[in-house]
Amino acid sequence: MTSLLASLRQTLPTTFGLHPTRPVLVGVSGGPDSLCLLDALHRLGYPVIAAHFNHQLRENAEADAVFVQATATRMGIPFAGGAGDVTRFSRARGFSIEEAARALRYPFLFAQARRFHAQAVAVGHHADDQAETVLMHFLRGAGLDGLKGMLPRDLLPVWDPEIPLVRPLLETPRTAILAYCLENDLTPRLDPTNDDPTYFRNRLRHEVLPALETYNPRLRAALTRTAQTLAADYETLQTLTNQAWDKCLLRAGRTYLALSLPPFHAQPLGLQRRLLRKGIETLRPGLRDVDFAAIERVLAFLAEGNEGVCEVVGNLRVFGEGARFWLAEKESDLPTDEWPQVDISPIRWGVGETVPLRAGWRLRAEPVTAPGPVPAGPDRAWVDARGLTPLTVRRRRPGDVFQPLGMDQPVKLSDFFINEKIPRRARDFWPLVCAGEEIVWIPGVRLGERFRVRGETREVLELILGRCDDFRREGNA
Amino acid sequence: MTSLLASLRQTLPTTFGLHPTRPVLVGVSGGPDSLCLLDALHRLGYPVIAAHFNHQLRENAEADAVFVQATATRMGIPFAGGAGDVTRFSRARGFSIEEAARALRYPFLFAQARRFHAQAVAVGHHADDQAETVLMHFLRGAGLDGLKGMLPRDLLPVWDPEIPLVRPLLETPRTAILAYCLENDLTPRLDPTNDDPTYFRNRLRHEVLPALETYNPRLRAALTRTAQTLAADYETLQTLTNQAWDKCLLRAGRTYLALSLPPFHAQPLGLQRRLLRKGIETLRPGLRDVDFAAIERVLAFLAEGNEGVCEVVGNLRVFGEGARFWLAEKESDLPTDEWPQVDISPIRWGVGETVPLRAGWRLRAEPVTAPGPVPAGPDRAWVDARGLTPLTVRRRRPGDVFQPLGMDQPVKLSDFFINEKIPRRARDFWPLVCAGEEIVWIPGVRLGERFRVRGETREVLELILGRCDDFRREGNA
Repeated sequence: MTSLLASLRQTLPTTFGLHPTRPVLVGVSGGPDSLCLLDALHRLGYPVIAAHFNHQLRENAEADAVFVQATATRMGIPFAGGAGDVTRFSRARGFSIEEAARALRYPFLFAQARRFHAQAVAVGHHADDQAETVLMHFLRGAGLDGLKGMLPRDLLPVWDPEIPLVRPLLETPRTAILAYCLENDLTPRLDPTNDDPTYFRNRLRHEVLPALETYNPRLRAALTRTAQTLAADYETLQTLTNQAWDKCLLRAGRTYLALSLPPFHAQPLGLQRRLLRKGIETLRPGLRDVDFAAIERVLAFLAEGNEGVCEVVGNLRVFGEGARFWLAEKESDLPTDEWPQVDISPIRWGVGETVPLRAGWRLRAEPVTAPGPVPAGPDRAWVDARGLTPLTVRRRRPGDVFQPLGMDQPVKLSDFFINEKIPRRARDFWPLVCAGEEIVWIPGVRLGERFRVRGETREVLELILGRCDDFRREGNA
Repeated sequence: MTSLLASLRQTLPTTFGLHPTRPVLVGVSGGPDSLCLLDALHRLGYPVIAAHFNHQLRENAEADAVFVQATATRMGIPFAGGAGDVTRFSRARGFSIEEAARALRYPFLFAQARRFHAQAVAVGHHADDQAETVLMHFLRGAGLDGLKGMLPRDLLPVWDPEIPLVRPLLETPRTAILAYCLENDLTPRLDPTNDDPTYFRNRLRHEVLPALETYNPRLRAALTRTAQTLAADYETLQTLTNQAWDKCLLRAGRTYLALSLPPFHAQPLGLQRRLLRKGIETLRPGLRDVDFAAIERVLAFLAEGNEGVCEVVGNLRVFGEGARFWLAEKESDLPTDEWPQVDISPIRWGVGETVPLRAGWRLRAEPVTAPGPVPAGPDRAWVDARGLTPLTVRRRRPGDVFQPLGMDQPVKLSDFFINEKIPRRARDFWPLVCAGEEIVWIPGVRLGERFRVRGETREVLELILGRCDDFRREGNA
């Protein structure tokens, strides 16, 4: 057994997490890398499927497809073929040829992997590819995300939420792959575009890497090591960011996110920055160039009391709201279903009737027939019913006043809302239960002093604020 | 005001944390970078001290020193000069010339900074130096620690525990520095060794960087950005590692560390690895090449029940001990002061006498004169004194048996120690209080059943295990 086979036998189940009896779909171009990978997996007893995607880029593209299919037949394994017009696709989308090829090839590979119930899609990227990738990112001024290079095993939800992409040859130099092909009488097809200097990657391969190797002859191994180390750091930061995210995230919708401030501020500054970036990435996937200044601006805003609005980037804003903050485009995108909000105003409300509010909230009024303790919470109120009906439910109006339970003077309703920390955007549509012009009860907040039950009260009405589930549960009881 | 001055006026107090009224010591070679820095700080009103270290490497070294001193005199600021034979020092220590120069220059600068009560040592490293540094580490296959480049502000305890090193020009390209020198009529000395291709850094500057710039003309800016991003990630990981370290560290001595397992295992794998590296770095400062395999071996050992010993690296071992583990060279380096341990054996022990044990532990025996509740803890025991004295204190012997309180049969002492989870290395010197051959009390663990106080007991002896502080406290009470 060659040393490559012996090494793969060990690392496939460990580093790459592959189960030896479950099928693996191998993306096979027909070149030495993928042919070696297919052959090695097959020899080690893994059930393999050879999948080839014809990019229709070269004259001999069809011959490559025929070759891979013939190889699969000779090996007695399933073959899956697909094709797409990469040139046309790249023009239509404004993609580079390489981007367009990936955008067509990978969806095909993952679709086939699902069809064959494969545990993974395996591709032939090797150590020299990795060195080129790291160098390419380096020359572009990348951060950890780019410099970590390709991962040995990677789950990419954009392609498949469960099937990973694995790269079993990622630490194998290309020379060892060519040697394997020779030893095992494999006759790979050669891709002439690998030498085309119009591709940036090929210039790296043929010009930059050899030049840099005069300064460090073991550069390729060094870059592989760099990628490994940085991938571990990247993973650590991702894990910690995700843990912190779970602690901070209060709500997530299609157009908004809410994060809790106390756990956010408990994170080190570097993780706070990453949480904001994750929030932006969640609402604006693929948005590039989230600049440092935008993140620092939001951090300063949140540190300074979280009041008002802060511009972020990509048309996103941060809205402060007490002990939490929202990330969204505009305030009207934020949900208001956490509070009772009234749509039609005013509504006449008779005893025994239910008043529907927004988002499943409801008001109900019922006569109290048996004595009992006066309800304590803000969602139920006992009121002296004498001369009270008909009640109305309405929105606030300019000049509204309210005398809260326990106070001897009415106050401005707007001041009362502020004191009670009712979020600004919840105030306009908060339902007010009134008798005539006077506010009897602010559901979920406070009863009016003048309407409380006293010793001389003869007739008690119970006012109840609830949501669908509450009413249903009570109905069944 | 030049744009460089305007930019520094803003960033010096923020990015570099400098207070405008407190002195800054500037390391000045006489070249354009440090001369520009000195001049800019001076013009912005910072009290500056010009410090020059003569490396005695070049013919005109003395002339450089004279130039810097004359410049300081002309500016009306203090000058501090120092000198050292770098060539001789490099030979004596086996350092490269660059390493030796640093090893002599920085201690001089920080000593002068202390003398002048300076808030920081400022040096002239600029954006091109940073790009070269990042590229140099990249070609060597560095991780985050190297690729993050030089920091804008750095506290290096090896030089000074409080005074930081700052690099105010780190984001300024060399061209802007040369322009500043021209505009302000500065006439810097030029260092011919900057062009000497025998220095690796000079080859990077004159050969590699220009070659790579043909692939990305804005490479230097890209590398500065890479350094900034990675420095932030590095700092985040350092902060999180230090937080985790504080949670895990139980004890630290010159030759050992003890970490608590439950908080260790609560960390993500990446931080567990960093904690082990930090432990190794603490006991073996400067140890290079702590390989990945050693760290993985220890992680596996700790995950598999933490039993016994695991080789690490650099002659260090991990010793498992219940819910903690030790990092040390050998078991005999670990402290035993957490338990009573006996030195001389056997010792005769009379009533009223104090038996000194290791590390401040002591045994005391006193007659009980007034009735009271029998002590409950393992550090005090009431025994039936009849026919008991003289007591002896001794180490364990092969074949020892012990009948613990509440059991009707004696058991092997070795089994009893295991059941009681007495650490293996504590067992040989654990003091046993005996009457004749029989074990009366194992201090800190359990009383012997046959010696407990019963209804018919006439004479009670109290046996007490304590440490210096306990006895002193009791004496004062």
